[in-house]
Amino acid sequence: MKKTIIGVMGPGSNAKEPDLNNAYQLGKLIAEQGWILLTGGRKAGVMDAASQGAKSANGLTLGILPGEDKTGISDAIDIAILTGIGSARNNINVLTSDVVIACGMGTGTASEIALALKAGKPVILLNDSPESYQFFNSLSPEKVIIVQSPEEAIARVMEILARQDC
Amino acid sequence: MKKTIIGVMGPGSNAKEPDLNNAYQLGKLIAEQGWILLTGGRKAGVMDAASQGAKSANGLTLGILPGEDKTGISDAIDIAILTGIGSARNNINVLTSDVVIACGMGTGTASEIALALKAGKPVILLNDSPESYQFFNSLSPEKVIIVQSPEEAIARVMEILARQDC
Amino acid sequence: MKKTIIGVMGPGSNAKEPDLNNAYQLGKLIAEQGWILLTGGRKAGVMDAASQGAKSANGLTLGILPGEDKTGISDAIDIAILTGIGSARNNINVLTSDVVIACGMGTGTASEIALALKAGKPVILLNDSPESYQFFNSLSPEKVIIVQSPEEAIARVMEILARQDC
Amino acid sequence: MKKTIIGVMGPGSNAKEPDLNNAYQLGKLIAEQGWILLTGGRKAGVMDAASQGAKSANGLTLGILPGEDKTGISDAIDIAILTGIGSARNNINVLTSDVVIACGMGTGTASEIALALKAGKPVILLNDSPESYQFFNSLSPEKVIIVQSPEEAIARVMEILARQDC
Repeated sequence: MKKTIIGVMGPGSNAKEPDLNNAYQLGKLIAEQGWILLTGGRKAGVMDAASQGAKSANGLTLGILPGEDKTGISDAIDIAILTGIGSARNNINVLTSDVVIACGMGTGTASEIALALKAGKPVILLNDSPESYQFFNSLSPEKVIIVQSPEEAIARVMEILARQDC
Repeated sequence: MKKTIIGVMGPGSNAKEPDLNNAYQLGKLIAEQGWILLTGGRKAGVMDAASQGAKSANGLTLGILPGEDKTGISDAIDIAILTGIGSARNNINVLTSDVVIACGMGTGTASEIALALKAGKPVILLNDSPESYQFFNSLSPEKVIIVQSPEEAIARVMEILARQDC
Repeated sequence: MKKTIIGVMGPGSNAKEPDLNNAYQLGKLIAEQGWILLTGGRKAGVMDAASQGAKSANGLTLGILPGEDKTGISDAIDIAILTGIGSARNNINVLTSDVVIACGMGTGTASEIALALKAGKPVILLNDSPESYQFFNSLSPEKVIIVQSPEEAIARVMEILARQDC
Repeated sequence: MKKTIIGVMGPGSNAKEPDLNNAYQLGKLIAEQGWILLTGGRKAGVMDAASQGAKSANGLTLGILPGEDKTGISDAIDIAILTGIGSARNNINVLTSDVVIACGMGTGTASEIALALKAGKPVILLNDSPESYQFFNSLSPEKVIIVQSPEEAIARVMEILARQDC
C-alpha cells in the first residue's frame, strides 16, 4: 500500500536559475509517474520550484518542514509535516525518500547527500559542481549517480525502483 | 493547498478491544470527511486499526514512524514518514495534526497529549480512564475535550476546524 | 567511566514558589552526592533553580536545550547541549537520566514523565497534584514513586541506583 | 559559567590508522586546554580514540550517542547523552560544539561538516582527502580551515575562540 516517494533536495534562497528550472521539471516528471514528491517544504528555491512543478501535473506533494508552525510553507505543499527539529529533519528527508535527487548544491543539500549515503540510499546528482561529483564519488562510488538533465534523473530512478522491486 | 490532517493517537500492542473499535470508526469517519489520517504508523493497536478504518473509506493515511526502515509499518499506511528518531517523533505527530484525538491510553499516548497541550493544540479524549480526564483537565482545562464516541469526536473536530478558519 | 546523571524536570516560567525551593534543594543534594544534574537548561523555573542549587554545592550541571543557540540558557549551566529540536528534546532528557525526578507539574513535565515511563525509567514525583499521582500510577504503578520532600527523593534515588548496580 | 566544548568528528569502524593517531592527540590537546571534548560517543574509530586521548590528560569527555541505551558507548566517555534519534544527532554534535574539527572522512563526518557550515560554525579539516578540501571550500570558503596536524588544529581553535570572546 505504501506509495513511492522521491525526494528532491536543493538550496533555498540561494538557488540558481538553472537549478530552479530543473527542480520544476523534476517535480512535474515525478508527478507524471504517479510518485509522491518529497521536499523540505519551504516557500523557497528548489523546494518550492519542485513542488510547483509537481502540482502542475496534479501530483501529491509532501513537505518535511524544519519549523513547528505553518510559517513559510510553500503553497504548493499538500501534506506539511511540521517536525520542529530544524536541520535534524534533513535525516528524515532522506530516510523517507526511496531515491534522493540533489538538484543544485549548498550546505543543507550536501548534508542530505551525505546522510542519504550513510543510510545506503541511492543519490542522483544534478548540478554544475564538479567538486561535488568528485567528493561524493570518493565517499561512495557505488551509490552516487551523476546526470545531466531531469529526464535522465527520472530514467535512473525508474531503473533503481525496478531493481528494488525484484 | 495544505490539506487538513487529523491525528489519532493510542496504544500499540496493549490496546483494548473497545479502543480498536473506536479507532477503526474514527479512521473511517475522518476519511469520509476528506481529511488525512495521521497515526504513529506501526502495524499495531490503535495506529493500525485507525488506518484500516480510513482505507475502508478510501482515505489517505499518513504514518509517522519511529524507525528508520520499513520494518513494522501497517499495510494500511499510504505515506510512511521514516523519522528514525524513536519516541521523539511523538512531538512531530502532534505538531503536524490540526487536531489530536487520543483513543485509549498508555505512556506513549499520554506523552502525545501532553506535548499537544504544550504546543497549544486542541486534544479530544476518547477512553475509559477517568484519571486521564482529571489529570489533563487539571493541566489545560480550556484545551481538553472529553467525548463518549467516535461520532462525537468528529463533531467536535468539525467545530474546531470551523473556528480555525474564521 | 560513565557518570551518574539525575534529571530534574519541572515547569519553566509557571513554576510555583514551593517547586522552586524544592528544585534548588534537589540540585544541591544531587551535587553533594557527586552526581551530575540534568535539566532542560533554560533560565527559568525549576530548571534554573535546580541548576543554581547544584552550583551552590559545586556540582556539575548539564542542560539539554530546545534551541540551537545560546539564547536563554541558565547561567548556572556548565555543559549546554544545544539540540535544536524543540520539545522533542524532552525524550533526550529522560533517556539520558538514570533516574527522573519531576518537581512540580505542567504540560512539558507531564510529557517527560510519560516518555520516561515509556522508556522504562523510574520516575519520582514531588508535587502537590493528586491528579498526577493517580494518573501516572494508573499508567505504570511499578515505576512511579511519590515523595514528600527533596530529601526523600534523594533517598529513593540511592535505593534505585543501588539496585541497578547489583 | 558555560564551558568551552570542542567537537572532534570522524569515521567509526572505517577510520584509518593516521586518523586514529590524530584523534588521540587532538583529544589529549583539547583536555590539556581545559576544554570539554565532544564526540559521537561510540566505542569505535575516531570517537573512541579522541575520548581515550582526552582521558589520558584527565579531560572531561561528552558523547552524543545515536541510540537510546548504553550499548556500544566508549568506556572513555564521562557524560553520555542518549539521544535516541540516530544520525539526526549529528546536528546536535555541531550545534553544541564551539568549534568542529573533522578528523578523517566518511559519510557521517561529511554530514557533520555540512551541517556545521549551515549553522555558521567554523570547521577545521584534518585529513588526507583533497576532494573534501575542494568541495567544502567551494561551499563555504570563509568557514573552512585546512590543517596538517593536531597541533595546528588546536592553534586555530585558540584563534577562533579568542575572536569569539571579543
